[in-house]
Formats: sequence, structure tokens, C-alpha cells
Amino acid sequence: MYNVHSVSGADASAVHGGAGVDPNLPPHRQEEAKQLLSRCLNLGISALRSSLPAIDVVELVVRELESDPLFNSGRGSALTEKGTAEMEASIMDGPRRRCGAVSGLTTVKNPVSLARLVMDNSPHSYLAFSGAEDFARQQGVELVDNGYFITEENLGMLKLAKEANTIFDYRIPAAGLETCSVGAGAVESGLQMNGLPISIYAPETVGCVVVDSQGRCAAATSTGGLMNKKSGRIGDSPLIGAGTYACDICAVSCTGEGEAIIRGTLARDVAAVMEYKGLGLQEGVDYVIKERLDEGLAGMIAVSRNGEVGYGFNTTGMFRGCATEDGFMEVGIWE
Amino acid sequence: MYNVHSVSGADASAVHGGAGVDPNLPPHRQEEAKQLLSRCLNLGISALRSSLPAIDVVELVVRELESDPLFNSGRGSALTEKGTAEMEASIMDGPRRRCGAVSGLTTVKNPVSLARLVMDNSPHSYLAFSGAEDFARQQGVELVDNGYFITEENLGMLKLAKEANTIFDYRIPAAGLETCSVGAGAVESGLQMNGLPISIYAPETVGCVVVDSQGRCAAATSTGGLMNKKSGRIGDSPLIGAGTYACDICAVSCTGEGEAIIRGTLARDVAAVMEYKGLGLQEGVDYVIKERLDEGLAGMIAVSRNGEVGYGFNTTGMFRGCATEDGFMEVGIWE
Repeated sequence: MYNVHSVSGADASAVHGGAGVDPNLPPHRQEEAKQLLSRCLNLGISALRSSLPAIDVVELVVRELESDPLFNSGRGSALTEKGTAEMEASIMDGPRRRCGAVSGLTTVKNPVSLARLVMDNSPHSYLAFSGAEDFARQQGVELVDNGYFITEENLGMLKLAKEANTIFDYRIPAAGLETCSVGAGAVESGLQMNGLPISIYAPETVGCVVVDSQGRCAAATSTGGLMNKKSGRIGDSPLIGAGTYACDICAVSCTGEGEAIIRGTLARDVAAVMEYKGLGLQEGVDYVIKERLDEGLAGMIAVSRNGEVGYGFNTTGMFRGCATEDGFMEVGIWE
Repeated sequence: MYNVHSVSGADASAVHGGAGVDPNLPPHRQEEAKQLLSRCLNLGISALRSSLPAIDVVELVVRELESDPLFNSGRGSALTEKGTAEMEASIMDGPRRRCGAVSGLTTVKNPVSLARLVMDNSPHSYLAFSGAEDFARQQGVELVDNGYFITEENLGMLKLAKEANTIFDYRIPAAGLETCSVGAGAVESGLQMNGLPISIYAPETVGCVVVDSQGRCAAATSTGGLMNKKSGRIGDSPLIGAGTYACDICAVSCTGEGEAIIRGTLARDVAAVMEYKGLGLQEGVDYVIKERLDEGLAGMIAVSRNGEVGYGFNTTGMFRGCATEDGFMEVGIWE
């Protein structure tokens, strides 16, 4: 279940809107997702043409994804069991492996930009919950009421998640993890909304990876986390090496079952097999999806310093696209 | 600045009490540290002789370190700028790479045991702040008033840290990171307490790695974080792949400058160079300390499935020790 695209020697960017797509997603929703991905790719390529460095481009593109309610990040985030949005994000700049991460945000309009400020303007790499919110106020970023992030659709999904009963409550994982599975579990749950089967997993984390004309790689990932999650659950998206990684070789952003991505140190491992084992970018992505995920379900996008783009997933689908400066662009959902 | 010890084909455990030791640490404090490390090693070896699996042994040993006020974890934790203890920990079991992590704990007597419960009894890998405390109450772990963790000595250190002015305040790292350096920065600061020069960095994170007779590896790390830190700062200790990692090849626990450990994915990289590059355990530790730390200062302990023990650090010292079932034991602080 992999998809391969490789373009060498050019600026390139790739973007995702989550792995584990509901196979019954209505066609008009698929179309909306593709349009948003295309808009983001155009934004990225245009920024690269203006010679913005990769780190600025990933931030710009993820801000766009956070501002649109379609995917699960920023506005449109999955909701906690209390009906609030609690978001997390991370960003990493390949050349010096500088990084910033945030968790537990409730009022910061663009989590990825706060992660960037943690990287640039604090001596730390990772700030969470009230400390992150304090830092946001100090830095003067745009703050909004938590209601800004909440959509009618997600309130409906949360209601269904609650009716389906404590899927993400703390229980022995034996049975619990079965129903947590991205894609498969969601389909088998048999839940419906407006007469259509839906996933209440809402795994539509967003991410972007970019390599610029100077071969600098960068990655960023942003998410609202799991629908009906307990406050305080941290997933893979803010974790450097898990959901996000960039170095002088490549940049990677992951999406899917967070716990599997964390124990597989998925994003770091793509770079590690390239660096230590000599694999190419797509080989590295394929290796990691196959060998590092155990029973977990996930997907990823990646770029190399040579301008290659790669992606892979073992879910039913992944919202993703890639584009290069020479005009090539591709967006897709399924295999 | 490395130290090598390798014992093949036996149960083994190693323990640390932090890297970046103040070179002027009074001899009686050095002696206390060595005694605590020896007690923990004996505890670990005795547990291995009783055929406890590695994962139980690392939890047991880190609980002992958390319960003793000497190092910076559990009782004796470094204090936030508000004068409270805010702790984090993680644990990882090699065989199936299961893991658990916690951050932002203020009432849980033994953070490492809550990390273990996250691993065993929740569908998640990482819980933080109020969500982690809720989970602790639900699981019925021992809770204590925050005052339990606070020592007179740390209150004095916090006062000095505050007088030395905002070392860990959020500022552009350019100047900030200089003073953040473990060891060197602390010595250069010229701070004194009771007429003795002291470090206000308090990097004495604790950790333990164990391999049992069946070749199962496990690792655990626990910390109070930085002295005078802002609430919400997350370091490397709870991050799988950064401060803690275990797989079927080895187990690693790191200590030192958290931000450098995070961007170097230090613990994962020891396993990665063994797995992907074919290095031995001590070679892997040496490689990672040399190649992955950039300007950062840190140290680590590691065990392999073959019963080897390794450690390394680029700081002035690291409280550490190792022991094997056949009776070998060594504790040390300096090179």
C-alpha cells in the first residue's frame, strides 16, 4: 500500500491531511480535501519561487491548513471529551536540527507558529499547557476563544463518539486498541451521521515537508489529536523523531495512530535508515512503514535534500499531495 | 571523555544520577551519591536474581531514586519558578517497544510508576498535566502534597537561581544557551551556597537500564527538570527516543541538556547505529556522544541484549554505576 513519486534536483514540497481515511467518505468531501491540498501546494511552491527558506514555507503551509476547518488541526480540531479543542504541533529545521514543539494549546490560533517561536525565541524545545499559553501571550501571537476552533460537524462527531462509549477512555488496551485502529476500526464501528458511515477517529492531522533550492529540508506537523480524548493526552505530532523530523538529509511528517508512531520513532527512522543504512528516500519510507509499525497504522510524507519526494502509508488512504518548482503537482487520497 | 565497561553474556544493570556534575561538589556529597547508586545497583541485581523481568527492575530502581531526595527526581526535584515541583518520567520495554510517559506531575509520589501504568493500563503512550493527574487518581497510585517533593536545599538553590536572574526565562537563546550549559556554565556562574560553589542547573536526572537473563532490555528515566523553570517546559526525559529508548537490541537512558538530547534523538540513535550501522554497544554510545550532540552537553547509560554495559558523557562528570549478576559492581562520577 505505498505510493511512489520521485523528482530529483528541484525544490519540492509535500503536504498531508492525515492517514486512515474513511473509505466511505462522500465524493464532495474528497473533492474539498483535494482542493485544499492543491491550494496549499501552490502556496508552498509560490513561496519557494520567492526564495523563502524551507522552514518558513512549512510554517506558512501548515498555518493555511490550521486556518481551514477541513482537517483536524487549528480550526476544525477534534474535540476532547469536554468538548474543547486542545491542540499540539511541532516544527523542525534540518540544517542545524533546531526544533520547537507545543502541546495543550486552547487559545493559540496557529499552533505551528507558536512551535516556531519556541524554536526561535525560547531556550527550550517544548512547552505545554499553561506554560505554553503564557509564552504565547508573552510573544504576542494571535489568540482566539476556544470556540473558534470548534465546528458543528465536530460537535456531532463528539456526540457520536460519546454514544459509542468511551473508546478513548483509559482502559486496558487489549480490547481498547482494536477499536482505536485508524480506518479499519472506524469502518467496523458502523457509526453513521446524516445517514453516512463515518469515522469518529478523526485522524486528519496535517503536515508539510519542504526542501528549498539550497537543499535545506524542514518539516512541520499540527493536530487536534483524538476525538473524545481526555485532556492531557499527547500524541506523536509534537514529538521530535516521532511525528516530525528534519536533518541535513531529509524531512518527514507522520500521521496516524500516534502510539505506534511514538514507539516506532517513525520520522527519525526514515532519516536513520538513509544516514546509517544508505537507503534512498522512498526506500527509507517503505522500510519504515513495513518494519517499524508493528500492528500500527500510519502514513508519512518525506523530502530529501536532493529534491526527491516520497510517501507511504499502510492505512486505507492518506490525504496527501506533492509539488515541485517545475510545475509538477499531484494530489491523492487512495492507493 | 568516555568511560567503557563491557561484560558479555550476563544479566546487567546500569544506573545514573545525572550528567554535568559540579567539579567542586563537596567530597561528602560525592560519597552520598555513590552510596545511593550502589544501593540501587544492589536492589537491581537482587531483583534480577529473583527473576524479575527487566521492565519491573527499571521501575523498582527508579522508584528508589525518586524516593531518595539526593538527585533531581521525585522527592528532591528541582523547582519551578513558582517554587513547586513539576515532574516527568518515561519507561520503555524492549521486547515489543511498549512505552509510557508522563509530564507535569505535581502530586504523584513516583512518576515512573505512573508512566508504567500509562503503558500498561491506558490506550495512550503519553499523558501530561491535569490529564495525567486525573489518570493517577483513577489508577489509585500514591499521591502526596507537592510539599513532599520540596527540600530545603532546593529552596535555597531556587533562591540563588532567581537572584542570578532569569536564566531559564524565555529569551533569545543566543546568550541564553551559553548560561544554560551543563557543568561549564554552572561553574562559571560563580554562585555559592554555604560558602561552597554550586550549580543551579540541577541536572541530576535519574535513569536505569537493565537486561535480564532472557535478554530483555528496558529503560526508565525520571526528572524534576530545570531549576527555576517555567511551568510547562518539557525536557528530554519523558520523550521516547530522546531521553529513553529500549528495543530488542539495547536500552538507553540519557541525562543532560534536554534540548540537545531532543534534537539529537539521542537514545534512539544508539539503537539505530547498532541496528542499521552494525556498531557494538559502546561504539554506539561513543558515536552518538561525539556525532549527535553538536554543542550540547549530555551523558547516557546503555545495556545490550548480550549483557554488555556502556556509558559515555561529554560533561565534567556523570553520576553512574553498573553491576552484573556475577557480582561485578562499579560506581563513578568523574572520567
